[in-house]
This record gives sequence, structure tokens and C-alpha cells, in this order.
Amino acid sequence: MATSSVLYNPLPVPQSTKKRSPSIARAPREIVLNPPHTSSSGQAARLAKSLLNLLHLHVEAPPGTEDLRFSRQVSSRDIDEKYSAPTKSPKEVICNKWREIHGSSDWENLLDPLHPGLRREIIKYGEFAQATYDAFDFDSFSEYCGSCRYNKRKLFDELGLNQNGYEVAEYIYAMSHVEIPRWLERSQVADTWSKDSNWIGYVAHSDDEETRRIGRRDILVAWRGTVAPSEWYEDFQRELEPIGNKDGHHARVERGFLSIYTSRSESTRYNKSSASEQAMSEIRKLVNLYRDRGEEVSLTITGHSLGGALALLNAHEASSAIPNLPTSVITFGAPRVGNSAFRDELRGNGVKTLRVVVKQDLVPKMPGLVFNESLDRFDEHITGALEWVYTHVGAELKLDVQSSPFLKHGFNLLGFHMMETYLHLVDGFLSTRSNFRADAKRDVALVNKACDMLVDELRVPHSWHQLAHKGLVCNEHGRWVKPRRDPEDIPSPIGVGHKQNFCC
Amino acid sequence: MATSSVLYNPLPVPQSTKKRSPSIARAPREIVLNPPHTSSSGQAARLAKSLLNLLHLHVEAPPGTEDLRFSRQVSSRDIDEKYSAPTKSPKEVICNKWREIHGSSDWENLLDPLHPGLRREIIKYGEFAQATYDAFDFDSFSEYCGSCRYNKRKLFDELGLNQNGYEVAEYIYAMSHVEIPRWLERSQVADTWSKDSNWIGYVAHSDDEETRRIGRRDILVAWRGTVAPSEWYEDFQRELEPIGNKDGHHARVERGFLSIYTSRSESTRYNKSSASEQAMSEIRKLVNLYRDRGEEVSLTITGHSLGGALALLNAHEASSAIPNLPTSVITFGAPRVGNSAFRDELRGNGVKTLRVVVKQDLVPKMPGLVFNESLDRFDEHITGALEWVYTHVGAELKLDVQSSPFLKHGFNLLGFHMMETYLHLVDGFLSTRSNFRADAKRDVALVNKACDMLVDELRVPHSWHQLAHKGLVCNEHGRWVKPRRDPEDIPSPIGVGHKQNFCC
Repeated sequence: MATSSVLYNPLPVPQSTKKRSPSIARAPREIVLNPPHTSSSGQAARLAKSLLNLLHLHVEAPPGTEDLRFSRQVSSRDIDEKYSAPTKSPKEVICNKWREIHGSSDWENLLDPLHPGLRREIIKYGEFAQATYDAFDFDSFSEYCGSCRYNKRKLFDELGLNQNGYEVAEYIYAMSHVEIPRWLERSQVADTWSKDSNWIGYVAHSDDEETRRIGRRDILVAWRGTVAPSEWYEDFQRELEPIGNKDGHHARVERGFLSIYTSRSESTRYNKSSASEQAMSEIRKLVNLYRDRGEEVSLTITGHSLGGALALLNAHEASSAIPNLPTSVITFGAPRVGNSAFRDELRGNGVKTLRVVVKQDLVPKMPGLVFNESLDRFDEHITGALEWVYTHVGAELKLDVQSSPFLKHGFNLLGFHMMETYLHLVDGFLSTRSNFRADAKRDVALVNKACDMLVDELRVPHSWHQLAHKGLVCNEHGRWVKPRRDPEDIPSPIGVGHKQNFCC
Repeated sequence: MATSSVLYNPLPVPQSTKKRSPSIARAPREIVLNPPHTSSSGQAARLAKSLLNLLHLHVEAPPGTEDLRFSRQVSSRDIDEKYSAPTKSPKEVICNKWREIHGSSDWENLLDPLHPGLRREIIKYGEFAQATYDAFDFDSFSEYCGSCRYNKRKLFDELGLNQNGYEVAEYIYAMSHVEIPRWLERSQVADTWSKDSNWIGYVAHSDDEETRRIGRRDILVAWRGTVAPSEWYEDFQRELEPIGNKDGHHARVERGFLSIYTSRSESTRYNKSSASEQAMSEIRKLVNLYRDRGEEVSLTITGHSLGGALALLNAHEASSAIPNLPTSVITFGAPRVGNSAFRDELRGNGVKTLRVVVKQDLVPKMPGLVFNESLDRFDEHITGALEWVYTHVGAELKLDVQSSPFLKHGFNLLGFHMMETYLHLVDGFLSTRSNFRADAKRDVALVNKACDMLVDELRVPHSWHQLAHKGLVCNEHGRWVKPRRDPEDIPSPIGVGHKQNFCC
């Protein structure tokens, strides 16, 4: 069937959100704890479970704003128009203002209202972070569980991200010496590609066309988030470890994050070098390559959830090691990572950090949730000196689930934290005083990929991002079997060619 | 990727099951309550929930047999051979023995050991019953929720059942005037194809080639099971209603089953006539058609779970209405339906009933679970006279989950009842004294379509029978939307042409 005739789940007319009627009774704020779905994304289920553990700590009650539900009178013409609308805003040339958009002035006057060029870049980097989930193999019956399902040359093509104008240079793998609850996705199969490591992200760079548009060669590092570390709060909240090499420094970061970032072992196949070493080696290579060509080079590091924490560690290291490299970090729903000295060193190194945060999301409040919230009443200089206080860094773009008429507003631990929810809310954000952007172009259905956040009227199934038959196919003999992974998509350690028979 | 190179989840070597070592320690019998999966089959989830309610009534402890787990040393050659093996036994011509296979001698001496020709027929009819699940639209966001996803000309083709040699003549729809908990799958969409009716089965007939092989024109009726009626037990256990037209008869059947079978309403689109009337009308038409051609005609009615109950009601009516029509019923995991007078009338009408029952499945013990089990101690003549006692009819083929080395043996309410579990066990059944059939050909992976019954070593994901992205597709504008159903697959009431704009 041609997919051009698809007109099924009608989208609401965004304009109707402007006509808020004060007479609409406020819907009761239902507390909905999404059950962990057994979707293709085991990550989502674990995340939900993990987040549920947090409940005893802190639940932010949604403020009493009026209900923004849209009218459901949508004509089929509205639907036609909506479905044939492009999902991207036109690309704007930003070669003359890239430094501001990259944070040179700490995004002053760019966030509220949100500069359209900046919005587009935030979504671009956010999609690069989302790619680390979409391509991850969560199938515990797969011998490749914990790897990327596609090789680096195919990644963006498979995920429809080619139009963003970047090319993947290298994959990054991570392990951890610290016993971290449930962060590693492990295959149940004996002959697995790796017993210790997971794919944790990638290094990419802008292609020539995108480089012309954005005014410099942009090196990108995207870090994958893992399950939200509710246990970390209890296990590691006081376990800050020193980072960096400076004499007499006080910069300390959360022990679990640091372990994932720096662990390596000679007995492994994918982490003979650490995630840190793999990322830094590739960043250095690309910086040297393009600087030798006389190009201007920037570094942008992104990540969602734990990936945001790793992004900050990576930025700290890169900015310390490579002088004069404009370095920005864009995190989504990231937890606090280190103490105020860590924040100060990032600042001192010139790292520009934009934290995108959904107000209702609990993860950015971790770790140190309780301590920091109560210490807000004290003078910052006092609390900043306490080494065990985790501190957020950089500028903040604060989003509100209640701003979107497409989203359910009932309490939803998982949904509030999902990267696709973040992307949707960035796409619709104009300013803290405005309604959801009427001409927001991103496909709303994406929000429900791995959660249940869209209002039922949209008729988008929840957690719909799943493989047909969980990857089984019917062979010519009528038997349902799992195809071997294409040899070119079998992971191979950095610097080693493709091998089908791996030992580890 | 070519599916010929699929060699992933190794199947065990069936031969190894013959070498049971008495020294193998018996695995502890773990009680596993499968959580209701949110698979594509909402039916499975509801069934699990429904079955769970039964737990307080009766749980049969698995008997202490030795563990049949196979050795996991499987060579890739074994796997190659297994995966390229045909999934069907060769078709045997049974034109001279069809009456025995159809039950003329009450399957005496055909069940233990199981006659190979009969096994093949049981699986054929079981697959016709399974088809009613595989093609059912469970999607509550679909306007066609509760209908068949394919039109009658495509059904067997879509499900890979063409080689069984039958053609669908007509679909059957059902409604119920009695409020029956959770039996009707209903769309959440306002403009749904039907607010009252569900697709409940179909009438088919053998094609010319199959007719030659099996010695007569076989008219087939397959009834879809609905969620297991745990509530019915409590609600309707004493509510037997009279059936049939005989003077002074005492035949009574369970009220809920009868309501689904006989309800109709002029204000509906699909049940202006009842399921009973639709089925009988088509049966009569086909019987007359082929008898007029001078052909020998038989009627075979099949169904799983509640579908088995409807099959018995249908057989009772057909055998009363159409003289001299050899009529057989093959039910799978069906509950008790009526009293002993109902059974006697079926017998008197010459209906031959084969009940396939998995020993560990609870559904065949419903309703009347407690009453009948305890009354077994009394003389049959006494209990048979009590009208409220539900009675099983016909011959029984009893299967045992423990006979299969492919299945988990831990308690699994849902898995024990699933039609695919039945088909697997029939395929492997030789006799009550034999091990699982070494040359069983059915694809073992099918068992896990909507449950979690296969041993982990097989690496078959649980509940894998799901649509890619729950039916959403990405259109040319990059938007994820649900395609409109192909107009030819939109349900239309019997006798009415295809209409896209329905009113109801």
C-alpha cells in the first residue's frame, strides 16, 4: 500500500490552542504511573522501574494551570495539510552567528524567547543523542546485545538523519570497574560480542555543506544515556572522586559516571582503551586533520540523561587537553555530575553548557536531589564550598510538559524524561510566556515511541517503536528465525577489521 | 538480507530427548506467573489477567516426572538441517479412511498411539482455529478494532494457510445481549466499523484437490475464542439456558455462550442476523451446492477456548437441522458448555466430538470446575441428572506440557492455554507412553507468538508476534501515521457490497 494515502490519526489544529477558554474546568491531575512496557526498548522498561524507586524522594506536583486540551473538531482538510507538512524548518545559514548560537555569550537573550536558529541546532544535536537509543540493540537474546545495530557508515542513513549533514567518524565503547546497578545491557547468549562493554556513543563531524552553513567544521560527540540511576543516588551520593590533573584542585565528580567514562581492561576486546581515551583520540585526530587544512573547528558534545553526564566529563577533559577549541555541551535531562569546583573548571576552560530541562522531569534533580533543593535557601558561596554538593553547570532552557496540547499532563515518570518528549517540547517552545508554537514541524507521533505521553485523541499507540516480530523472519522453509546480523554491522574493536569469529 | 542464511536460534536435537538420563536432577518446579505482556495481542494480556483470577479456584501441581531438558550441545550442522527441514509432513491420501479419522468410531484405537493421518488433520483444523487470532484486529485505536484484518479471499494467503487446501466462503460476526465481561473488543474511535459486533469466525470448504485427498467435500466452520471467561464462572455458573426445540428436552447450555451464539439486533450492521443464523445459512448453502453436484459432504467445526464452546453449539444446531450430514467437532482447550442432556443430544444426533486438552490448562475445567471435580466421585447417573452440572462431551486427546523438551514446565496460566502450545503438543504427540516425536515438523518458534513458553536456550523472544511499529509507517513527508486499511479489507455486512462510508 502506498504510504501517501495515510490519513489516519488526526492531529489537532495547533491554532486552537490559542483560544484557551477560561471557562474550561480544570481536569483533575491524575497520577499515572506508567507500567513498564515490554516494548522493544528494554531500556524504557528498566528506566520506568528505576524511576519508580525515586518516588519516595520527591514528586513535584504539577502546578495548577488551566487545561490546554484542544478542541477535537478537526476537518479532514486540516489533517491532509498537517500530514503533508514538512517535518523540518528550512535550513537557515548561520555562518555569521554561529559563535553566539554555540554559546559564546552564554546564550544570553537567545533562550527566552528562543532564537529560531538556536532551536534548530538544539533539535539537531538532540536527534544525534536520540540516535544512540534508536540504534541500540536491547535484545538480550541477541549475541550483539549492547552494541549498535548498524555500522558507523550506515547509522545516520538507517535513522533518517542524513539530512543533518554529519558523518560518523568512530564509535565509542564503555565498561565500568565500579559495580553499577543495571547500566550494562548484557546478552544472555554465551558467545556474545562482548561480556563487558556497551556501545556508548560516537564521534562525528559536519560534512562540507553543513560546515559552510554553520560557519565552521563541527566535531560532534554524542553520548548514550543508560538507565536512570536511581540506585546511584543512594549508593554514590557522597562518593565524589577527583577529576583532572591540576594541582590542589577540588573538582570532583560522581564516582559511577567517572567509572563508565574512564574504565578499561586489557582482558576486554572493546575497552582496552577507555571511553575517554577512545573519544579523545578521535577528537584530537579530527581537530588536527581540519586545523591542518586551515579550517575553523568547534567541538559540540551532547547527551541525554546519563549521556549528558558523560558529555560534561568529556567536555572537561577536552577543554583541558586541547587549547583554543570552542567547546559547547548541550545536555537533555541530565543529572548533576560534580561539585562547584568542577563547574568552575568547566567555566574556566571556556566550556559553554546549555542544559535543556523539562520542569517535571526528576532526573535533572539527581543526584543530590534532597541536599541541593534544601540548600538553595543558603548563600551560594557557603553551599558551593561543600564538596559533596552536586552542582548544575551552565545556562538552562526550561521546558514545561503543560505547554504542549499534544501531551498528557498526568504524572508520568518515564514520559517526562524521554528524549523524544524533550525534542517535542523544544520544537514547540517560543518563550516562557507563549503558547506552544503553532508552526512546530516535528512529527508529534515520535513522542510515543517508547512511552505513553500523547493524548488519546491523536490515536498514536504507546511504545510503538518496535521491530516486526521482534526481528524474527520467516525463512523459505516456513520457519521463524532470527537473521544473522549483516557481517558489516557486526561490531569490531577500534582499529581492528571486521571479524565474524570473535573471542573475548 | 536473504532469509536463507538464517541460523540464529539453535533448535535442540530432538533425538537427545530419547536419552533421558535418570541421573539428571529434577529441576525445582518454579511457579511462574507470566505478567500480562503488552504485546500486539491485547487478547493475550487480558487472557492472562482473566486466568489469574482463577487461581483461587484450582491449581494443578505438575506431577513429579523427570526433567526432559535436552543437551545444549548442538552443532551448526544440526541447526542447518533443522532450519531447512519442511514444516509439514507429506500429505497422505486419506480418502478411504476419512470416516474413521472424522470420528465414525469415536476415534477408538486412533488416539493412543495417535494415528499419523489423524494428527495431520487435527493440526490442519487447529491452524484454522489459530487463524481467527492471527487475523484479528486487537488495536483499540483502530476504527476496525474487532474485525478481521483481511478480507475472506485473502485470509489464508496472508496467513500462509493456502497449502491446507480450503477456501473461505463467508465470515461470521457475533454480538451479545447478555453483558459479558470483556468479551467484545471495542474501538476507542468514534466512527468505528461496528459498536456491537466482533468478527467471530468463518465458514470455509475444501477445494477440489483437498476434496480428492480427504475423500469428501469438507465444510469447515472455525470459531474464534475470546478472552477466557473467568468471570463467567462466578456470574453464570448456574445460569444454564434451554437450547433447541425438542419437546420436553432438558438440554441446557451456559447462558453467556448461548447469547454470543444467538444474539441479533435490527439496529446493528453486522448482526441483523445472529452468528448462529449466519453460520447455518452458509452451511446450508454449501451443503446444498455440493450435494446437488452429487458430492459427499461432511461438516467439521473447530474452535479454541470459547471458540470450542461455540463450535459445540453450532454442531448441536447443524446436526439437528441437517439430516445425514457427517458432523465432527474438534475443540482445543474448550470449557464445558452444557449439561448431560446437551451431551446426550449431541450424541443422539451423531455428532462426533474430539476434545484436545492440555492437562495443565485450566480452561477446560471451567465452568463447573469445582462441582464436577468433586462430583466425579459420585455415580455418573446421579450427577448427570443434575441440570446445573456442566459436562464434557466426546473423546479426549490429552496432552502434557511436560512431554515437550522445548517448553518451560513451570506453571504458566497463559502459556498452557495458548492455541500454539496445543498445536506444538499435538505435533509432538505419539502416545501417552512415548517421548516427544523426534520428527515433529512444526516450527517450534510459533509457540512463543503471544506467550513465554519456550526454554531460553532456543533464544526465541517471548510474545514476538507483533507488527512493525504497531502498524505505523513513515510517509513521504517523514511523518509516522497509520495507513488506512485497504478498501477491499474493510468489513462489510454479509450480502452487502464494499462500502467505505459506513453508518452504524
